[in-house]
Order: sequence, then structure tokens, then C-alpha cells
Amino acid sequence: MSDVLQQLDQILEARKQASSDSSYVASLHAKGLNKILEKVGEESVEAIIAAKDAQHSGDNKDVIYETADLWFHSLVMLSHLGESSQAVLDELARRFDMSGLEEKANRQQK
Amino acid sequence: MSDVLQQLDQILEARKQASSDSSYVASLHAKGLNKILEKVGEESVEAIIAAKDAQHSGDNKDVIYETADLWFHSLVMLSHLGESSQAVLDELARRFDMSGLEEKANRQQK
Amino acid sequence: MSDVLQQLDQILEARKQASSDSSYVASLHAKGLNKILEKVGEESVEAIIAAKDAQHSGDNKDVIYETADLWFHSLVMLSHLGESSQAVLDELARRFDMSGLEEKANRQQK
Amino acid sequence: MSDVLQQLDQILEARKQASSDSSYVASLHAKGLNKILEKVGEESVEAIIAAKDAQHSGDNKDVIYETADLWFHSLVMLSHLGESSQAVLDELARRFDMSGLEEKANRQQK
Repeated sequence: MSDVLQQLDQILEARKQASSDSSYVASLHAKGLNKILEKVGEESVEAIIAAKDAQHSGDNKDVIYETADLWFHSLVMLSHLGESSQAVLDELARRFDMSGLEEKANRQQK
Repeated sequence: MSDVLQQLDQILEARKQASSDSSYVASLHAKGLNKILEKVGEESVEAIIAAKDAQHSGDNKDVIYETADLWFHSLVMLSHLGESSQAVLDELARRFDMSGLEEKANRQQK
Repeated sequence: MSDVLQQLDQILEARKQASSDSSYVASLHAKGLNKILEKVGEESVEAIIAAKDAQHSGDNKDVIYETADLWFHSLVMLSHLGESSQAVLDELARRFDMSGLEEKANRQQK
Repeated sequence: MSDVLQQLDQILEARKQASSDSSYVASLHAKGLNKILEKVGEESVEAIIAAKDAQHSGDNKDVIYETADLWFHSLVMLSHLGESSQAVLDELARRFDMSGLEEKANRQQK
């Protein structure tokens, strides 16, 4: 599934160069960082509201949708600053010592 | 790198069951959904502030760190509701028609 | 100046009853609490971004404008739940023991 | 009630000068604008969550408390930038043409 984020990085990189008429992502870049950050803020609030509704309805569809929107716009933010999902995944891996985990898992398989 | 999110899902699932004394994630689950959503809100604002600082300093270290925090706490939120990163990646793949992209990529390799 | 918030309470109460075609506030109430909360979230992020810009530009115009937007939409939220600015001012007065301050001020005037 | 915001402005101005050991507000100023903006973001999310809970419980106590927290921290933000509640009230009055409303009200009384 890592392919999803790698493919998304490629899509975001391509659309960063596209004309702002033809692409939502290009139009966000043209409007500038503040507009992109407003979207990150909006999507986080929509995810929070959707989670509260899921708590009562038991239906997770909207909270998944809004979290995807949040991740997407946070990747547009990173793309605007010259970064990609790789940097986030590297930071998460570092934090949870995943190379270590992987190594340990490999050792246990032997 | 997809392994990072898959491993993180496993870590989050294990810590959901852990005692709240021993694990930050377990303590969040014990405090309940509102506390987890507060953290999602906090981390999104910290990512936005870090992006504004990166705009002036040219240093992306903090914005990457805060985005990792944001993704991490949004995964704790999903875990609390019984979902994992897979659901977010599926939604992103659906949205960008990635099965189509993948198929096309496979065809081009032949 | 308290008159501003009292007048605003009256305006918000009147527009709560208005047709949603004729009034922005009425249209927010018609769309429901989630839409109003999304606006509260949006305006808080816009105020935060404007404050970061003010930090560098020294121009406070936008941060004042966005804070007014934030207070306005938080009053629409309270109005939707049957409350007004009075409840917020009472809570702030209670918290800072202002009846005490006022009493002390009155004593000093004698 | 305008007195509440005027008194709060005076309190915030006094505490801006206080030692950061003795006052929460002074400690926020000492930590800097980013810390203050994080608090604005946190309180807006807590108000949103409290509003969702009020929607189901019918109890508005928490949403009033969190809105007071939000207004308070947005005033600390403005104080840090050299502004006060007056600027927000002026902007709200301008927006709703309240001098006009007041004039009209005065005319109707005659």
C-alpha cells in the first residue's frame, strides 16, 4: 500500500507544475501557502466533527473521508515547501524505531 | 515504505490493549475520544504554525515533525473508532483512481 | 462599548428567525450546527495565520478582522444552542472575580 | 457589561508586564506568540467538541466555558500584538453598521 503515498507524491509533484485552471492542486499552489494552511485547518476540524458524529452513529465513513482530506492537504502543504510523504514516514519510522523493530522481527524469524 | 504505516497500525493496535500506565497511546484511549480529538486539533495548529515559520526560515524540520504528530494522532483517532491507516489509503487510492494507475503502470512494463 | 455585543445579540436573534435566503446567519442556522462549527474552526485558523503574518509585517489589520470573524461565528454557535454573548461575559467576569473588582472600584470612588 | 471586556483589557495589560512566575498570562507572553496561538487553536477545538456534546446532552455549560477560554486567549494574542478588545468591537460595530442602528434607534424613540 506504500504505493498509494508514493503515487500520490508523484501526482502532487506533477500538478504543482500544472496550470492553475486545470488542477485543484495547482490552483492551491497559485493561491499560496496561507490558502493551503486554511485548508489543512478546515479539514482537521471536519475530521474532528465527523469523529464526534461517528461516536454517536457508529458510521465511520465520513471520518475516514475527512481524514483522507486532511492527509491530502497536509501533503499539498509539504509539497509547497518542497517535501513529500517520505519525510513524514521517515519521521514516524525514526520515532517508533522501526528499523529496530524490523531487525528484531527478522531475527525472530530465524 | 508502506511498511511504516502497516507497522504503525500494529503498534497502535497493541497499545490500545496495553495498560494506560505503560503507554501514551493507551492513556489517550483511556481518557476517551474528546482527548484524542483535542490532540488532533493541537497538532494541526502546530503544523500550520510550523509551516508559517518554515516559510520565513526555509527550515522544514519542524513542519515535518508536526505533520508526523498530526498523522500519528489522526491514526489514534481512527484506531479508537476501530479503523486503521488502510481505510485512509484506500480512500486516497479510490479518489485518485490509483488501481487504474497501477494497472496502466503494469501494462506499460510489459 | 458593551452595546456592540448587546446589539449583536439582538441582530443574531432576529436573523435566527429570518428566511435563509435573506440572511447569511439564517443560512448558517438552516445548514445546521456542523456547518457553524466548521466556520468557527476556519476563522480560528485564519486568525492564527493572520497573527503570524502580523508578527512579520507589523500590520495588525487582518488579525483584528479575523478575530472579529471568530467572535462573530462563535456567537452564531452560541445562538444556535440558545445562548448569547452575556453567558461568555458572565463566565469571564466570574473567572476574574470582576464583581469584586467593581465593588472595590466603587469603594475607591467614595 | 462592556465593563467586563474593558476590565479584562486592563487585567491583560497589567499581567503583560508582570513576572512570568506570578501570572499565567505573563508566562504565555514569555513563551512567545507561537505558544499563544497554540492555545487559541486548542480552545477553538475544545469549544467545537463541547458544542457537539451540548447538541446531544442539551447542557451548554462546557461550550460557554470553552468559548470564554477562546475569547480570553484571542485577547492575549491581540495584547501580544499591541491590540485590545476595543479593536474587535470596533470592527464588529463597523461591520453591522451599529452607529447607524443606534442613530435609527434614537430617531425611533423621538
